[in-house]
Amino acid sequence: MAAACFRADLRATATFSLFVRRLPPERGFLLAAGLADVLEYLRALRFTPEGLEWLASLGRFDSAFLDHLAGLRFTGEVRAMPEGTAVFAEEPLLEVTAPLIEAQLVETAVINLIHLPTLVASKAVRSVLAASGRPLAEFGLRRSHGTDAGMKAARAAWIAGFESTSNVLAGKVDGIPLSGTMAHSYVSAFRDELEAFRAYARAHPDSCVLLIDTYDTVAGAHKAVQVAAELAARGHRLAGVRIDSGDLDRLSRAVRRVLDDGGAADVPIVVSGGLDEHDVARLVSAGAPIGAFGLGTRIDTSADAPSLDLVYKLVRVDGRDVLKLSTGKESWVGPKAVHRFVGADGRFAQDHLAAADEPVPAGAVTLLSPVMERGELLWTHPTLEEIRSRAADQVAGLAEPIRRLSGAGKYPVEISPVLRARQAAARAGC
Amino acid sequence: MAAACFRADLRATATFSLFVRRLPPERGFLLAAGLADVLEYLRALRFTPEGLEWLASLGRFDSAFLDHLAGLRFTGEVRAMPEGTAVFAEEPLLEVTAPLIEAQLVETAVINLIHLPTLVASKAVRSVLAASGRPLAEFGLRRSHGTDAGMKAARAAWIAGFESTSNVLAGKVDGIPLSGTMAHSYVSAFRDELEAFRAYARAHPDSCVLLIDTYDTVAGAHKAVQVAAELAARGHRLAGVRIDSGDLDRLSRAVRRVLDDGGAADVPIVVSGGLDEHDVARLVSAGAPIGAFGLGTRIDTSADAPSLDLVYKLVRVDGRDVLKLSTGKESWVGPKAVHRFVGADGRFAQDHLAAADEPVPAGAVTLLSPVMERGELLWTHPTLEEIRSRAADQVAGLAEPIRRLSGAGKYPVEISPVLRARQAAARAGC
Repeated sequence: MAAACFRADLRATATFSLFVRRLPPERGFLLAAGLADVLEYLRALRFTPEGLEWLASLGRFDSAFLDHLAGLRFTGEVRAMPEGTAVFAEEPLLEVTAPLIEAQLVETAVINLIHLPTLVASKAVRSVLAASGRPLAEFGLRRSHGTDAGMKAARAAWIAGFESTSNVLAGKVDGIPLSGTMAHSYVSAFRDELEAFRAYARAHPDSCVLLIDTYDTVAGAHKAVQVAAELAARGHRLAGVRIDSGDLDRLSRAVRRVLDDGGAADVPIVVSGGLDEHDVARLVSAGAPIGAFGLGTRIDTSADAPSLDLVYKLVRVDGRDVLKLSTGKESWVGPKAVHRFVGADGRFAQDHLAAADEPVPAGAVTLLSPVMERGELLWTHPTLEEIRSRAADQVAGLAEPIRRLSGAGKYPVEISPVLRARQAAARAGC
Repeated sequence: MAAACFRADLRATATFSLFVRRLPPERGFLLAAGLADVLEYLRALRFTPEGLEWLASLGRFDSAFLDHLAGLRFTGEVRAMPEGTAVFAEEPLLEVTAPLIEAQLVETAVINLIHLPTLVASKAVRSVLAASGRPLAEFGLRRSHGTDAGMKAARAAWIAGFESTSNVLAGKVDGIPLSGTMAHSYVSAFRDELEAFRAYARAHPDSCVLLIDTYDTVAGAHKAVQVAAELAARGHRLAGVRIDSGDLDRLSRAVRRVLDDGGAADVPIVVSGGLDEHDVARLVSAGAPIGAFGLGTRIDTSADAPSLDLVYKLVRVDGRDVLKLSTGKESWVGPKAVHRFVGADGRFAQDHLAAADEPVPAGAVTLLSPVMERGELLWTHPTLEEIRSRAADQVAGLAEPIRRLSGAGKYPVEISPVLRARQAAARAGC
């Protein structure tokens, strides 16, 4: 496409809008994430000599075009919602305005870099809501879709309100608090479960979470009581026990009794094992005595909805509003703004999807702001703590029906009269 | 765990087995993939000074253990199925035998590196079967779970029998044939659809696939006829037209008529737009005149089953068979072999899951072979072409019921009497 545009000397300025056409069935809202990576990508975008040589070797591109690519930098502007913003169908998460070739060339990267973080943050926040304050640990690296996905999932889950990750590199790179426990293989490697527990407690006296279901969960709990007493005698506290299989409601109650009777009433129970937000909600509402949850595969892969209908659409080129008419894929023309109205109770009342050049209505906040101009970053990206805090505030702003795990209500997103008029004008012009 | 094992001076040799506990509902078989990355990871494994410094800064590890990590290399052996092998539940894709700390430390990486390639190859091959010889292009990079996943998905889909990818870097790195077409945004960027088509044809006279559904698909087909004639007059051939929305069965027939009537009978129709193997099967069985399919998101994310129940289990340590008893998670003890019996018709009749030290029965082939010893690679990894060819042979070896897209038959995997006896002995010893 770039080669054809270059050859046709099509150097108009274009605006592309990144948005989700429809929310997945079980989502009342999404949490935007991934912007930091997009901005870094755009800032650093260039073709390497090696890449250009390889493109030349394909024999498909002439040297004028390859020279153009050699000098290509992203020189455009980006308006975006901050990471951690609650976002709904049809609302742009970001808009890129740049010379057509630049704006078009970055499509795949922009979608890819926003898609997974937004997908996982939007999935993970559901477990945070279900857990009603109980801490969650992200355990999913082993079955995330590759290593890059594992890093992004740890970051996205933390933004969404998880307390920690078992991904050590995410601790190093992003500063996310680390947690983890032993595996069944660790316990099995010792001849005796108690011996395995004691060895772990010796190595980690202040962060010892014992996995007690390798053989018999209740018997494991009795051994944990013993280790808790031994740790206490040395001035430490057993950090927890973990159950990774079986009927977690029943077992957590049985284990709680063993711990309480054995003087380990302050030792929390952690559960894990292929759980998702519905399991968390079920266990919490049953009153199971569970202190924390470890969640992995189903969060990192967003198992019930492993992709978002996230698209990057041309909405204006050379000053002309662009309308796509393909069946089922019509989208709103032109650069846009999202204006959010906040009620007196601090709750979000409704959003207006408007043209970008409309004034912000009184009582509304506007959600996209310029973050890059002439290819230069306009701001210092918020810290991960700031993003996480924004996400928590945004979720707190949603009415209860929007936050429901199933059968969520539809948050009202109104289309502004100006935008409707422009859409009609563009359709008439087709 | 490693710190605890080190402190407890637990230096036994351990064997871990990597296998899928249960196939996803709609899978009669899986295609193993990802081994090349695992072997490279194991070969290169070491802790960097920077990583060790960071670990030390956590204050959780003593210097004796950190010194141990500084010198740690993978010194063990790996037995594995070649990539492209058809594999079933409970059959090990690979086994690692190494000092316990080494074998345990690599768990997350080994699972992660095999999981996605196997997941995507096993998903993609279903579309290959459904397409009955029609070429498939992998288009999924934009919504794969990160950039690493996009690269792995392109490679896995190609192993499974796709013809090409739109991921240019996968073309450069892995040599996968590239294909692609224009986007709707390309067409919309021109004032006129025909002008957009002509510009593309000028830039790519020999690989021009026109996207004809931006405005009106049948009108787009008429313009494609015009461009085909113009290309033919210059000695080129229009490579195809693509339909990305709407009722693909009906539209492909209408477009076929326009092309045929316009003297473009040799121009194939490519369809795309959120398709999976069931869509392909439906369109093929309806006799829609479709020459090729572009498949993306639902393949790259394995949408109906975005993870495999892939586990890495300790099966022997210090010469002792290890049995895991956790509810629903019992697995077979000891290092294992998979013996596959091939019938006179070349079809696979059944597999035996056996102990690794059992002789290979007459008439069977054994599927795991040593690929690494003392941390050194024993072989040159097959080329991607060889892996792809093996995958095609393996799929051809499967009886029709095993290959079905829905309601697949269960391939017979028998447990050898020796393995059963060892399992019973291990259970009795618990």
